[in-house]
Amino acid sequence: MERYWGQIAYLGKNLAGWQKQSNAENTVQAYLEKAVFQITDEKVKITGAGRTDAGVHAQRQVFHFDLKKPQNQARLLGGINAIIPREMSVLDLEVVSTDFHSLRDAKEKWYRYRILNRRMHCPFRQDVVLFYPQPLEVGLIQKAAKYLQGEHDFSSFCASGTGAKTMIRNLKKLEIKREADEIILDFQAPGFLYKMVRNITGTLLDVGRGKIEPEEVREILKKKDRRAAGPTAPAFGLTLMRIFY
Amino acid sequence: MERYWGQIAYLGKNLAGWQKQSNAENTVQAYLEKAVFQITDEKVKITGAGRTDAGVHAQRQVFHFDLKKPQNQARLLGGINAIIPREMSVLDLEVVSTDFHSLRDAKEKWYRYRILNRRMHCPFRQDVVLFYPQPLEVGLIQKAAKYLQGEHDFSSFCASGTGAKTMIRNLKKLEIKREADEIILDFQAPGFLYKMVRNITGTLLDVGRGKIEPEEVREILKKKDRRAAGPTAPAFGLTLMRIFY
Repeated sequence: MERYWGQIAYLGKNLAGWQKQSNAENTVQAYLEKAVFQITDEKVKITGAGRTDAGVHAQRQVFHFDLKKPQNQARLLGGINAIIPREMSVLDLEVVSTDFHSLRDAKEKWYRYRILNRRMHCPFRQDVVLFYPQPLEVGLIQKAAKYLQGEHDFSSFCASGTGAKTMIRNLKKLEIKREADEIILDFQAPGFLYKMVRNITGTLLDVGRGKIEPEEVREILKKKDRRAAGPTAPAFGLTLMRIFY
Repeated sequence: MERYWGQIAYLGKNLAGWQKQSNAENTVQAYLEKAVFQITDEKVKITGAGRTDAGVHAQRQVFHFDLKKPQNQARLLGGINAIIPREMSVLDLEVVSTDFHSLRDAKEKWYRYRILNRRMHCPFRQDVVLFYPQPLEVGLIQKAAKYLQGEHDFSSFCASGTGAKTMIRNLKKLEIKREADEIILDFQAPGFLYKMVRNITGTLLDVGRGKIEPEEVREILKKKDRRAAGPTAPAFGLTLMRIFY
């Protein structure tokens, strides 16, 4: 048996997210498993470092799977990329130690939310940034972000329907910056709750446009109630950037 | 009468180019004229600084048109952007002197051709770069480019069906560089022949992959025959970057 480690980029637009589902064929996992089967005739289970929701993008999602028969790595990589849709691109594929586990060994994940903050939308970025033409005050967002950094009970930012045992997460990094016409929110943590990044982003947008004060974010956290926070920002502004091991 | 100057960005993917045509409704000019009519009830003719072919993109195409009745500029700009498809975005719209003419006053145009030169394609750039997985030698392309710079008869790089009076053009700048995983070709000239940039790019790709020697480009120029040069590179790798006045 050989264990393969891989990295994949995908544009979430026409995908129903990472995880295989009974009611949707267009998931990254399902496309990958089908491609590997077509090439190797082996039914594999592909394990990802994290599940991304429908519409969310990835620059370098990490995964692993096992094959019984040895394969030519370059041929396997080229074959998979020839079969999967153009929204996906496997960037690396290598045989690794069978000790490696993409999900269990992942130390931290880095997500980025991009907001196009100018009057006019951009035809070249419409699939990957949230267009937000109203003025946003980055200083206020940065101030609010300070209350969210570190270890907290993030119940107020967790969508229902999760099976999480605890609502405590350690948001090690939450950096907000303006880069040209975009506002970029970088989130890094060992783990996130369901829709946590998009729920925090929706609330920070409310802070940025002056609807709520930065200090109110601390109160929202304390309430441990999803209804206390702002709306969920749309999936297409979010990208899984890197998995750290 | 008021003359309006504007700048527009567009993703060429679902567009049949700049110029209005009897057999295609999805041109930038037609969409703009229709939007202005819907808002002002005036039938205008919109003049662009240059015609881009079907599928070609623009970062800042320049245009002008005249309106009989005065309009609120911000309202007009917002209205146009609300009507035109999402592949297009008017970035600026201002009243200028009636002396200004987008086409006649244009001094130089800058076009960029982007080539993704790595083994794996990129889902995020598939609409705007040519994916070219075979190795390309930038040094060879740069050497060949030197023969094309300056004033020449570019017949060998002009597609048929043009009404141009002369085949002589002054290619003031042809810069080739590698930036991360892309090879970027920048063309700047007062004017270009029909499909000239894409025909030169196709030939330079033949040079880069070693099919022809850089010196052969000089011979191709001399032949003044389209059949002597390489194939036409696809439209979606090409972007009109700026018009200089």
